[in-house]
Amino acid sequence: MRILVVNVNTTQSMTDSIGRTARSVAAPGTEIVPLTPLFGADSVEGNYESYLAAIAVMETVRHYDQPFDAVIQAGYGEHGREGLQELLEVPVVDITEAAASTAQFLGHKYSVVTTLDRAVPLIEDRLKLAGLDARCASVRASGLGVLELEADPQAAVEAIAAEAVRAVQDDHAEVICLGCGGMAELNERVAARTGVPIVDGVAAAVTIAESLVRLGLKTSKVRTYAPPRPKTFKDWPPRT
Amino acid sequence: MRILVVNVNTTQSMTDSIGRTARSVAAPGTEIVPLTPLFGADSVEGNYESYLAAIAVMETVRHYDQPFDAVIQAGYGEHGREGLQELLEVPVVDITEAAASTAQFLGHKYSVVTTLDRAVPLIEDRLKLAGLDARCASVRASGLGVLELEADPQAAVEAIAAEAVRAVQDDHAEVICLGCGGMAELNERVAARTGVPIVDGVAAAVTIAESLVRLGLKTSKVRTYAPPRPKTFKDWPPRT
Amino acid sequence: MRILVVNVNTTQSMTDSIGRTARSVAAPGTEIVPLTPLFGADSVEGNYESYLAAIAVMETVRHYDQPFDAVIQAGYGEHGREGLQELLEVPVVDITEAAASTAQFLGHKYSVVTTLDRAVPLIEDRLKLAGLDARCASVRASGLGVLELEADPQAAVEAIAAEAVRAVQDDHAEVICLGCGGMAELNERVAARTGVPIVDGVAAAVTIAESLVRLGLKTSKVRTYAPPRPKTFKDWPPRT
Amino acid sequence: MRILVVNVNTTQSMTDSIGRTARSVAAPGTEIVPLTPLFGADSVEGNYESYLAAIAVMETVRHYDQPFDAVIQAGYGEHGREGLQELLEVPVVDITEAAASTAQFLGHKYSVVTTLDRAVPLIEDRLKLAGLDARCASVRASGLGVLELEADPQAAVEAIAAEAVRAVQDDHAEVICLGCGGMAELNERVAARTGVPIVDGVAAAVTIAESLVRLGLKTSKVRTYAPPRPKTFKDWPPRT
Amino acid sequence: MRILVVNVNTTQSMTDSIGRTARSVAAPGTEIVPLTPLFGADSVEGNYESYLAAIAVMETVRHYDQPFDAVIQAGYGEHGREGLQELLEVPVVDITEAAASTAQFLGHKYSVVTTLDRAVPLIEDRLKLAGLDARCASVRASGLGVLELEADPQAAVEAIAAEAVRAVQDDHAEVICLGCGGMAELNERVAARTGVPIVDGVAAAVTIAESLVRLGLKTSKVRTYAPPRPKTFKDWPPRT
Amino acid sequence: MRILVVNVNTTQSMTDSIGRTARSVAAPGTEIVPLTPLFGADSVEGNYESYLAAIAVMETVRHYDQPFDAVIQAGYGEHGREGLQELLEVPVVDITEAAASTAQFLGHKYSVVTTLDRAVPLIEDRLKLAGLDARCASVRASGLGVLELEADPQAAVEAIAAEAVRAVQDDHAEVICLGCGGMAELNERVAARTGVPIVDGVAAAVTIAESLVRLGLKTSKVRTYAPPRPKTFKDWPPRT
Repeated sequence: MRILVVNVNTTQSMTDSIGRTARSVAAPGTEIVPLTPLFGADSVEGNYESYLAAIAVMETVRHYDQPFDAVIQAGYGEHGREGLQELLEVPVVDITEAAASTAQFLGHKYSVVTTLDRAVPLIEDRLKLAGLDARCASVRASGLGVLELEADPQAAVEAIAAEAVRAVQDDHAEVICLGCGGMAELNERVAARTGVPIVDGVAAAVTIAESLVRLGLKTSKVRTYAPPRPKTFKDWPPRT
Repeated sequence: MRILVVNVNTTQSMTDSIGRTARSVAAPGTEIVPLTPLFGADSVEGNYESYLAAIAVMETVRHYDQPFDAVIQAGYGEHGREGLQELLEVPVVDITEAAASTAQFLGHKYSVVTTLDRAVPLIEDRLKLAGLDARCASVRASGLGVLELEADPQAAVEAIAAEAVRAVQDDHAEVICLGCGGMAELNERVAARTGVPIVDGVAAAVTIAESLVRLGLKTSKVRTYAPPRPKTFKDWPPRT
Repeated sequence: MRILVVNVNTTQSMTDSIGRTARSVAAPGTEIVPLTPLFGADSVEGNYESYLAAIAVMETVRHYDQPFDAVIQAGYGEHGREGLQELLEVPVVDITEAAASTAQFLGHKYSVVTTLDRAVPLIEDRLKLAGLDARCASVRASGLGVLELEADPQAAVEAIAAEAVRAVQDDHAEVICLGCGGMAELNERVAARTGVPIVDGVAAAVTIAESLVRLGLKTSKVRTYAPPRPKTFKDWPPRT
Repeated sequence: MRILVVNVNTTQSMTDSIGRTARSVAAPGTEIVPLTPLFGADSVEGNYESYLAAIAVMETVRHYDQPFDAVIQAGYGEHGREGLQELLEVPVVDITEAAASTAQFLGHKYSVVTTLDRAVPLIEDRLKLAGLDARCASVRASGLGVLELEADPQAAVEAIAAEAVRAVQDDHAEVICLGCGGMAELNERVAARTGVPIVDGVAAAVTIAESLVRLGLKTSKVRTYAPPRPKTFKDWPPRT
Repeated sequence: MRILVVNVNTTQSMTDSIGRTARSVAAPGTEIVPLTPLFGADSVEGNYESYLAAIAVMETVRHYDQPFDAVIQAGYGEHGREGLQELLEVPVVDITEAAASTAQFLGHKYSVVTTLDRAVPLIEDRLKLAGLDARCASVRASGLGVLELEADPQAAVEAIAAEAVRAVQDDHAEVICLGCGGMAELNERVAARTGVPIVDGVAAAVTIAESLVRLGLKTSKVRTYAPPRPKTFKDWPPRT
Repeated sequence: MRILVVNVNTTQSMTDSIGRTARSVAAPGTEIVPLTPLFGADSVEGNYESYLAAIAVMETVRHYDQPFDAVIQAGYGEHGREGLQELLEVPVVDITEAAASTAQFLGHKYSVVTTLDRAVPLIEDRLKLAGLDARCASVRASGLGVLELEADPQAAVEAIAAEAVRAVQDDHAEVICLGCGGMAELNERVAARTGVPIVDGVAAAVTIAESLVRLGLKTSKVRTYAPPRPKTFKDWPPRT
């Protein structure tokens, strides 16, 4: 099967990193196709860029001209998953929800450790909409921006692990979700520091997408995610 | 003061209708500037168009080159308000939230009557995120599409009033919110049929925006709606 | 239009202060009529006085013999608003709810800073009943009694600002509501200390009441706030 | 021990009925003292009368000049219990909460059957504040006014039993609370019609009050129900 | 009347202690029958032992061959109450729920102080299922194991009182529930240290069970707690 | 990898059916080991049998003397999963939670269709504890007992499909979970009748268990699911 894994920012090296993570857990026979959005910001750290990423991810998937079996939206706490579900019949998996769903099988409460403090409310809102907030102990920020994770992985591990330890000790989290697509490769080092299971959203999403495909399950089309009605569009998609 | 009232679809006649409603309730000295998005669908009836509208509304407001004091996003149950709040210091008022906030001053429970059934989950989700769902008795659909409201206002009144009556009788709503920017001018006729207060989102939003401006209140910039961080954008904004 | 602004305690200087605040934000053409309850306690700082104030406010409004267009109950976290809504057709606005509703347009979470710790549960309960608690980050007490606010405004500003800063830093509030009718005139000085929008309940309530009147909206009479049924009263109202 | 059972309306025959019910379940050695409020409405069927009853019940208890061990407020869905708790050290038991607490020991969900539809939101609000709403399947109204219950007990049994049966069949209630002080003596006949346990609030409250006294438990005075602070009162209490 | 008070662990001295507590509050004419489970662990401090205790308590009650009027399950935060309710018609009272229900009549919020930290999530889950979590300020652990309470009562008092004080000061609890069957006899000493009402679950459960019996109320049999359907059992009950 | 799939009842033919379903979706290289409990009821349709099954499943897994990588508890709405998680380090997946987690990736709301009405509250409670209830539209019962599903599969399909259709039309479910281990093989036929995705808990659990193993994730041991403390057991395990 072929799974599209779509980055939400336009930084190619992060798409590459996400792709490596996805491939490292994919089953034999699963082809991972990492995609970088056709347009948008080099990092997504707030609502403006996130809304732009939402529509960019949709356009990017629409431009992809080969068959595929599932799509993973590889941004943490980002807008847009519902739109993809309308456009597609194949399953769409958001990494925020994939991580939380997976964490809930491993402990009584989980926490998310993300990048900047300003991302916290976005993640909280996505978890609330997804109905996955009841067992979320906290969403904590390491204080590092998305691109800083790439620039200094060792500092990133320190900052993330420090917040993860606080989540376990102060908030009673029993599992930690790494709340950024770009944190994927730091997984093991953080795990070693905290003593609790660490869930990476991209990895979790790959196995969930594979599972849905294997079970023959597709997005329900009876109501919320019915295909868009025919429309007349003004000046869209943009001329490129 | 000058208030931008931004339609979410690209149908000029609906922008005109929204503008008329806004002007009909605006205080003396308030200038209403109705705007049609620079791009997007002629009606917004689902997540794909709504996400596109979110970014179109933001770009449209960014292109507006005169000073203004507040912005109203005149789409019911649509994405995007948070992005506008990041981009601007002046207050941003979403009509879904304006209507619900207003309705809560008038009765114990309120219901929303919207267009198509597929819009119901979008509205429910926006109310949940806004923390305005606890007193929402129901969100009901008239079954008419956005553009059908314009084409046959009498049928629209019938269909909307029928659902409003059910909301009052079966769901114990005491106030009805008209859940579509395009319903604004049907207000009085529906009120006559139901015997409960009818709240139009555009009208409510105008008075709320005026009030915030008068009180000197602006969007908080300390966390969720801090200005976007500097980014490098790829192929955005689109060439026009 | 004429708006009655009813203090909940019998201290005339606080009625005066509330009246000044109300007039300072009222639109041209709005007449503010501050009223002091006919009976009750000189400050309301708990359930006993609050229940007494509830009925005193109702009797005071019933004794007012001129026409009016809306009523504001100017006590924070107090009982009684539902009773006024039954007695009247014109809109009734409680300042606790007015402040919270307004704050929700300005940030992701808001906090309330009130007077004494014992008032905190009353405010929390009123926000819960009003369905405005989901985005309330915290209700905090400055430790000063209602009349101490008047006696030493500078100490009040210090104490309130200190709690407001804690609400922003520790509870992630992005907006602060001043949780006492008597805090109205401290608004600007607290704002200067905290860097977030400060919402005063009386000011917010005036603009909301004006808006409801301008929109022609009145309290729904179909269920919860239907007029009282005819009753035989024993020894009530009290002989004066 | 001596327990004051305070009616909320000024109809002496209902006080008598409540007193009979209370005595019928009281333990040997418990003295039941039924009290009729010093002032107020002959029946309480809405917020105005309920707020008046709140303060009337408090004044009535304050006028009672003998020692007592607990107080029962015998009105369903009425305001005021928190005020009594401030004024007194002995336990205060509200019959709405007594019935719900008791019902929760007997089935997975319970429903309340009350008098008029307009009382439903009041009861729902009191259960929400009491934190006893999570297992409430529904609050239903028989359509009979408080005094009609007395005038035609047989019609009352029919109307109440009919709603109780609907609550069991449609709402999955497993226990029914009779939602009116005046329903107390209809208990057995309704039980015979529905096949589920019927909880009368007055009876439940008597056993709870006795239990609290026997366990030596009193109202906590550390925060919400601390004694009222010293105040200067204007024209209160009323001259009689 | 005869009430079975069933310990959840197989330590006879704890059954004795529970029995003493129960008898100390029982009404004249109430016979308390303390029972030790036929099988199971000497202390219950986690899900494995708790599930075993659930079935052991049920078997123990089934083996009891005399008539009885109510059953108390004397374990804090333990599984099994629902099973007993299916097997029996007489009321079943869980001490976790008895304590919480009782505490809610005494203050605005209550906290539970239990033994080990690992018991906290079990108690939280039971309170959530019982619908008694809305007014629970916190569940705190003293860090002492169940049997340590017995071995060193003075240290137990210190540890429990310390957490109780934190619950009052930091979590705004106004009442404390002692969260372990084995804490029953420490009640007064902890109360002296904290200044708030202390509720012991066993004592509360005795009065509630007596009350239900006195009111003639039994477990509803219409749905959740209907008697078990006839089954064929393999190798159960165990040969003894 | 080897996955134990443990039936909750002692009917071997149902274990066989569950095993067939599990194997039909297992990845190459996954060995499915279906287990029948060592003791317990031939069908589990209520709390008594469910609590017995909880402890029987634990004992059965403890008796299994080969290595294994994950355990699936194949009963819908049953007790016990938390105990298994304490006893084991490998992942434990409950089919109720597996189905709900999976359904949430496919639609905005899901419903569960189960066997008997009395099972509904058990399933609702398990979903609430699992934090998976926010998007559950309804739990509906077909009215057929567990063993009737086996005896007359065609009638079962009819009854289940009828409730599934009601869930979609009346409750706005967009996905249906089949709420019984024994329904596994009816999946496709029900899907054909309803037009929405049908999720079988056993199939979903297999892919989730495989995914957790593949990701190297195990149950968190820091708090709720820490290994049981050393205990002295009386008369347990039972002599066989």
